[in-house]
Amino acid sequence: MPQRSPLDLPEGDPFGPHNLPYGVFTAPHAPHLRKIGVRYGNHVLDVGAAAAATASPHAEPLGADTLNPLMAAGRPVWQAVRAEVLDWLTDPGHRSTIEPLMHPLPTVALHLPFEVADYADFYASEHHATNTGRIFRPDGEALTPNWKHMPIGYHGRAGTILVSGTPIVRPQGQHLPPADTSAPHASSPTPVFGPSLRLDFEAEVAFVVGAPSTVNTPVPLSGFHDHVFGVCLLNDWSARDIQAWEYRPLGPFLGKSFATSLAAWVTPLDALAAARTGPPARDVPPLPYLDDSAAGPGGLDLRLEVALNGHTISRPPFSAMYWTAAQQLAHLTVNGASLRTGDLFASGTVSGPRPDELGCLLELTWGGRDPLRLPDGARTFLEDGDEVTVTAWAPGPQGTRIGLGEVTGQVVPATP
Amino acid sequence: MPQRSPLDLPEGDPFGPHNLPYGVFTAPHAPHLRKIGVRYGNHVLDVGAAAAATASPHAEPLGADTLNPLMAAGRPVWQAVRAEVLDWLTDPGHRSTIEPLMHPLPTVALHLPFEVADYADFYASEHHATNTGRIFRPDGEALTPNWKHMPIGYHGRAGTILVSGTPIVRPQGQHLPPADTSAPHASSPTPVFGPSLRLDFEAEVAFVVGAPSTVNTPVPLSGFHDHVFGVCLLNDWSARDIQAWEYRPLGPFLGKSFATSLAAWVTPLDALAAARTGPPARDVPPLPYLDDSAAGPGGLDLRLEVALNGHTISRPPFSAMYWTAAQQLAHLTVNGASLRTGDLFASGTVSGPRPDELGCLLELTWGGRDPLRLPDGARTFLEDGDEVTVTAWAPGPQGTRIGLGEVTGQVVPATP
Repeated sequence: MPQRSPLDLPEGDPFGPHNLPYGVFTAPHAPHLRKIGVRYGNHVLDVGAAAAATASPHAEPLGADTLNPLMAAGRPVWQAVRAEVLDWLTDPGHRSTIEPLMHPLPTVALHLPFEVADYADFYASEHHATNTGRIFRPDGEALTPNWKHMPIGYHGRAGTILVSGTPIVRPQGQHLPPADTSAPHASSPTPVFGPSLRLDFEAEVAFVVGAPSTVNTPVPLSGFHDHVFGVCLLNDWSARDIQAWEYRPLGPFLGKSFATSLAAWVTPLDALAAARTGPPARDVPPLPYLDDSAAGPGGLDLRLEVALNGHTISRPPFSAMYWTAAQQLAHLTVNGASLRTGDLFASGTVSGPRPDELGCLLELTWGGRDPLRLPDGARTFLEDGDEVTVTAWAPGPQGTRIGLGEVTGQVVPATP
Repeated sequence: MPQRSPLDLPEGDPFGPHNLPYGVFTAPHAPHLRKIGVRYGNHVLDVGAAAAATASPHAEPLGADTLNPLMAAGRPVWQAVRAEVLDWLTDPGHRSTIEPLMHPLPTVALHLPFEVADYADFYASEHHATNTGRIFRPDGEALTPNWKHMPIGYHGRAGTILVSGTPIVRPQGQHLPPADTSAPHASSPTPVFGPSLRLDFEAEVAFVVGAPSTVNTPVPLSGFHDHVFGVCLLNDWSARDIQAWEYRPLGPFLGKSFATSLAAWVTPLDALAAARTGPPARDVPPLPYLDDSAAGPGGLDLRLEVALNGHTISRPPFSAMYWTAAQQLAHLTVNGASLRTGDLFASGTVSGPRPDELGCLLELTWGGRDPLRLPDGARTFLEDGDEVTVTAWAPGPQGTRIGLGEVTGQVVPATP
């Protein structure tokens, strides 16, 4: 019986011809030679080799060892390359050339798909911001007065963004002793130093900038698709005890900067056309540069799923985000700040309105008050050995599904 | 009468043989060819050409177009190169080779001396933090309870760090109407959009990382000199109205990210050996990883001077900083975060205890309440056309002075 070709996908495969995400891989016979790949089913097409074999006009960016040159080339090239890759994978005339360039997914190593320039993280879920505000500031307002006027965000550490699968060492740092963590405003609290006792994940969706912008030229809402190359899942690991003690008045720092995990696959924005959806109603009218009421639907119907040690603990809906990615980008640049190829901006924790739609343990356990019951025991925050995996899919054309791959990581004990 | 050689410096030149700062320049005949230069008096030595002409073992890093390869090479190479450059400039045997490689400073263009990786900004002056706290939070505590336990910091935008001399376009953004700026907590404030009305500078000292570190390997206080290549002046331009409205709860973002100016000259740490000084007494004992009581003097006696349109308005003393740069680096990495070549971390505004030692207009005018009287009129915040220049010097060996160059920038009107 002939073996099935990797080019013949089962009906409805979430990594079929409507998806075509990009990554960077090494094959086992050449562990130091990074190459650009496109995932198709459970195989990876070496698109650098395919471009060379077919005398593609895009052999140069596809032959690079990161996605940066392709991302920098701009939307017309992105669209032309996407059409060319689809042709390679589906035109029977290419079959004998392409089939030998497909690697089974389990045989390759996946790497960070691009060099990250600046990394910004937003806070765009009203549900998450409200819950976090209630937990961190029980005596104050839940949402700060600015929250409905702008997508609140901050810059994170680009140098500690790690590809999915990298083990996460439990961070150490200053925090208040457990009894004091609810009272960081006590008159003279005394911190202790040690491994974080409240390590958490945050399920997020990140957007990567391809085409750069020039300084003092803000990117309007309508410029989103010209600058943003694609979407990746992201886990913004957070040490809640370090964060709670440090964050006043300049925001999160060491509670986040030890590690951020990024999915190995970048889904092109064009693959998500069928997932575009209107954002929730805004109860405060946005200023003109953020007003998307006359634009097309700016939200994305991505269905996230969070598993802890293989057990699904939440299904956060990205369609519930108050601020869209286009609004985040317009805000990020409205002061004149320029964009570079590789700039990454993330949504902040994706949480929906329901208790089984929350995107982090802080919310799922209400600050550790209500432990989660799992088959392997109760959890307030993450224990050493715990593995967190975020997956997602989106509706594609004609009833298909677009898989967003996964971002996964296992917690390992703090370095002694 | 023979012209004086650029190798014969006047006695006491602050850019003499004890200094030897590095920069990146282009000469007028080759405006696209970036080269590494060392400043000597009012000339720049093309050290790439000097290395080639003398068959130096360091021709490769010195022939690069940024300082990154030299910075990455590590301290033994930094010391060997520094000795070699000193030899070129002072050994009469090299004179005929070296003299033709000196460019008069006014004829060259200076560029950003290295590629910035991550940029973090601290808040290490007790005087600045106290004053800012009083102005921004008049009803609350001036210093947050964490301040004396750790160097508070946050990540800034690396992609908008600009070389000294680049014009600074007044940023636009959301802020509360002027009457409301003192009350960002009003029950339902409504922001307006437009050019910042409270544009400020912040005089800071920045440290650049040369040798990288690995993830999960914190850099102890004693590792500072192995990782940090040198020092530059920095101006952290700040739109106070945008900052005041946006900064809760995640810290400064668009109020800072439009532009940060960096001096063109990096002074090697080794040039500042005579400037080392003990930091102020700590009234709260630091945790062990920050305890420098048994280390050598961790402060630096840098004397800053801030001029607005040529008039000196402040002389902030860097020796008054509560937290040292070595403590900042130890804190930045204690959670396991790694360092990359080109990571830049700044001190935060340098302010001393006296009214003529404050490092920003927010403090100098007490939030705009007490205008500064200048020959060209009163100032609360910066007006279009204003030029801010920060210079500094440090004591060198044998009574000499080490000049730190300058960071300067002129405010130009917001883009319509």
